[in-house]
Amino acid sequence: MTLLSDSEIQTKLGELVSWEVRGKELQRTFEFANFVQAIDFVNRLVEPAESAGHHPDLSVSYNKVTVSLTTHDEGGLTAKDFDLARIISAL
Amino acid sequence: MTLLSDSEIQTKLGELVSWEVRGKELQRTFEFANFVQAIDFVNRLVEPAESAGHHPDLSVSYNKVTVSLTTHDEGGLTAKDFDLARIISAL
Repeated sequence: MTLLSDSEIQTKLGELVSWEVRGKELQRTFEFANFVQAIDFVNRLVEPAESAGHHPDLSVSYNKVTVSLTTHDEGGLTAKDFDLARIISAL
Repeated sequence: MTLLSDSEIQTKLGELVSWEVRGKELQRTFEFANFVQAIDFVNRLVEPAESAGHHPDLSVSYNKVTVSLTTHDEGGLTAKDFDLARIISAL
């Protein structure tokens, strides 16, 4: 995995809906009807995260889940982050 | 529910292990072997949170889960937060 350049990041970001880049993280907040449904979503993340060997940081506040992706080993965003974002968007 | 005074907070905090008060939140970070076990813990929280009608904010970073409790309606810490902290500690 190699770090993406700013222009690569902008291109890949354009292929995603509702994600944004904040510093070295790719972030999106998903909103659900309630806490139970928010946690259901968290559970659906587990299999793809484990398969990719790549684990988003998650922040849950009642019915909202913020997913933050970055490639810690590289110190920034790589294709791995965008690949997992695409999968998570489709959950 | 009424807001706890500082001395009530200190007394109740003394009855808990490894929790700390940060601003208006009661917080503890739980550490697990990996992401899957961290999410298992998140799942174990759901039933007690739903039963109490009280939902902690959660922050998951790979094998760590930070649980933050506060009573938003009262704008600070109440007995409800300490009651749920005690239950979560025993999960």
